[in-house]
Amino acid sequence: MANTTKPSPFAPKTLPLLAPLAGVRFATAQAGIRYKDRTDLMVAVMDEGTTAAGVLTQSKTASAPVLWCRKSLKNGQARILVVNSGNANAFTGMRGRAAVEETAEAAAEAVGCAPKDVYIASTGVIGEPLDAGKFKHLLADLAATAAPDAFEPAARAIMTTDTYPKLATRAARIGDTDVTINGFCKGAGMIAPDMATMLCFIFTDAAISADVLQELLDEHVKTTFNSMTVDGDTSTSDTCLLFATGAAEARGQKPVTKTKSKRLKDFSDALQDLMRDLAIQVAKDGEGISKFVTFIVEGAETEAAARRIALSCANSPILKTAIAGEDPNWGRVVMAVGKSGEAADRDQLAIWFGDSCVARSGERAAEYDEATVANYMKNPEITIRIDAGVGKASATVWTCDLTHDYVSINADYRS
Amino acid sequence: MANTTKPSPFAPKTLPLLAPLAGVRFATAQAGIRYKDRTDLMVAVMDEGTTAAGVLTQSKTASAPVLWCRKSLKNGQARILVVNSGNANAFTGMRGRAAVEETAEAAAEAVGCAPKDVYIASTGVIGEPLDAGKFKHLLADLAATAAPDAFEPAARAIMTTDTYPKLATRAARIGDTDVTINGFCKGAGMIAPDMATMLCFIFTDAAISADVLQELLDEHVKTTFNSMTVDGDTSTSDTCLLFATGAAEARGQKPVTKTKSKRLKDFSDALQDLMRDLAIQVAKDGEGISKFVTFIVEGAETEAAARRIALSCANSPILKTAIAGEDPNWGRVVMAVGKSGEAADRDQLAIWFGDSCVARSGERAAEYDEATVANYMKNPEITIRIDAGVGKASATVWTCDLTHDYVSINADYRS
Repeated sequence: MANTTKPSPFAPKTLPLLAPLAGVRFATAQAGIRYKDRTDLMVAVMDEGTTAAGVLTQSKTASAPVLWCRKSLKNGQARILVVNSGNANAFTGMRGRAAVEETAEAAAEAVGCAPKDVYIASTGVIGEPLDAGKFKHLLADLAATAAPDAFEPAARAIMTTDTYPKLATRAARIGDTDVTINGFCKGAGMIAPDMATMLCFIFTDAAISADVLQELLDEHVKTTFNSMTVDGDTSTSDTCLLFATGAAEARGQKPVTKTKSKRLKDFSDALQDLMRDLAIQVAKDGEGISKFVTFIVEGAETEAAARRIALSCANSPILKTAIAGEDPNWGRVVMAVGKSGEAADRDQLAIWFGDSCVARSGERAAEYDEATVANYMKNPEITIRIDAGVGKASATVWTCDLTHDYVSINADYRS
Repeated sequence: MANTTKPSPFAPKTLPLLAPLAGVRFATAQAGIRYKDRTDLMVAVMDEGTTAAGVLTQSKTASAPVLWCRKSLKNGQARILVVNSGNANAFTGMRGRAAVEETAEAAAEAVGCAPKDVYIASTGVIGEPLDAGKFKHLLADLAATAAPDAFEPAARAIMTTDTYPKLATRAARIGDTDVTINGFCKGAGMIAPDMATMLCFIFTDAAISADVLQELLDEHVKTTFNSMTVDGDTSTSDTCLLFATGAAEARGQKPVTKTKSKRLKDFSDALQDLMRDLAIQVAKDGEGISKFVTFIVEGAETEAAARRIALSCANSPILKTAIAGEDPNWGRVVMAVGKSGEAADRDQLAIWFGDSCVARSGERAAEYDEATVANYMKNPEITIRIDAGVGKASATVWTCDLTHDYVSINADYRS
């Protein structure tokens, strides 16, 4: 089950250090929901005045916690986030809703807030009833002992088949005030976010209103989490939440309440950068990964078309297995471009593996040298660039290859 | 490369015997296009007056032979079909078009027809120039020696990674005349037909006009080839052609020229049955297959929606690997239904593995018994039925599981 598989070859040698961020504190526990001898419950306690934004799975079979978050996000305020791993509380019917309500009630009581200020996320097996009784009695203690420097333990507690915790931090300036953005996420399989990755939580001490936060998140999710895929399988539980504690206001930051505010530029860029960092960390921990692959599509009609062509490549089993086999099988790139349904001019199409042009003007490039390209395929990180030849828009998508280990991991996840 | 992998466990013990069909003859040769010591060139010669219909890949990077067939189909007449395996002549630019034209010219000369009565299909590696010089000089001899009883050698000559030839025959009556439908096809990987399977050729001695044939083919392709997938990867070369020699007219069959003709009912049913048979044979030879899987979706809003839900399941890597691992992981069925984007009522959704209801009313079924369902998963053929709970439309889709062998086969196809 979790963590029994070998670590991703892309597991970072050292984890980024996330400095405490005023207004938010973390605690974790071993609730024994499914895993033994590891933490599986995480609580984030936020100061009063914290604003919230979120993007959630577009799955028609969304989990009970996703439906709860959708409701809480309407008021845009947050005081506590409760996350468990080992059980997704998805497709659990009435009992699933009851488990979420019990959790929210206990969490609200733990910090003295209304249930609508509670956010909940669950990840793990789908279809098993989640027993909130296993952990709701722990929430008061966790809230009371939560500490500001516990980002890493928090990131570890939400892991499932992840082989490393995924953390990122960025600094930004709003006006003359320095603010911090810290985030972490989890995900390794069933990853083709339609709105966000499985679970991602981002915190900042900036003072930004909920509607502005939401707009930033919506914008950046497209070029980050929605541009990443492991296996094309969109989860029932995808949840990306962004919380702003507003603590920087005490240090002189004038709250941002307008989307178009020029003061937001630096923060917005830093947020996008952090989200891209986390998305790439997820792809690099893709189940069974041996190669990290970047598809860059240029010359498409629109950015959305470019992204769909890149995703069509990144989700193609027959292309991903070729990459696993270090086979520069660019004919399969042609196939994946063709099946995307997006406009591409077959006779203008060009393809590069790394710096080598393998195809141009609708046929194999004159300078194509099999030995050079085959040698390039031995690299752990592969970049494939495609010029669709019909326009000026571009997009980048990150993924991993499809290996024997992916099959092994998923053929016996439950048993 | 081709045929070095172990045979599918679903390879038929005996092949169906296809009786000669008046008006069409076959010949094959070893042209050495790519494979050694096996046939890789097939010619079908048809009598004057043969009508033709076809459905071709919707890929935006369609192969040169596909573009050629699209043109020939406009006149709806056929005299000769030339098919090679080992090279798809796809993404080969000007040279690809030239190779097709050279082939068509030589083929037309071989039977004394116009180039527009020639049909061409190629299957194999994408992006390698195809040298028509390797086989065009063989066409005259092949046409002259073609024999009516060579369906099986013809089916063998067009194989690539197939582990068995795929043949089917049906009898039908039009008015008082008995007619025959014989067909064969190939395909094992890069299979997610958007219009037809990779290559499928169907012949009948019935006298039916080209426009009526086309309508029949368009109708039945939806519930047969377009309801089957191996890996979700749509080929650049998908070609399904249906030829009617009209020889039955000499035995008293009045030619059918109207689509709505009641006389067509029996023929139409037999044709659909044959196409379904061939589609299932393709799925049963899916690369690396260990289990044959049928997804039946009921209670959907429309037939198209039901098919998309079923295909979303049939193309889900994480669900297909669970099936390979004999894990009754119905939570992944919930995920795949959810990601299809089609309407499904989470709280009405029901799922059966074989005869066992595993989920009902949005949660695990009360009678769910893990041991029973786990035992069912040991069967070589698995049927998963889904009630979407929102309507009355249904659809069936056939596929195979995703195994280590799929990865092995595709990680070194070219090398």
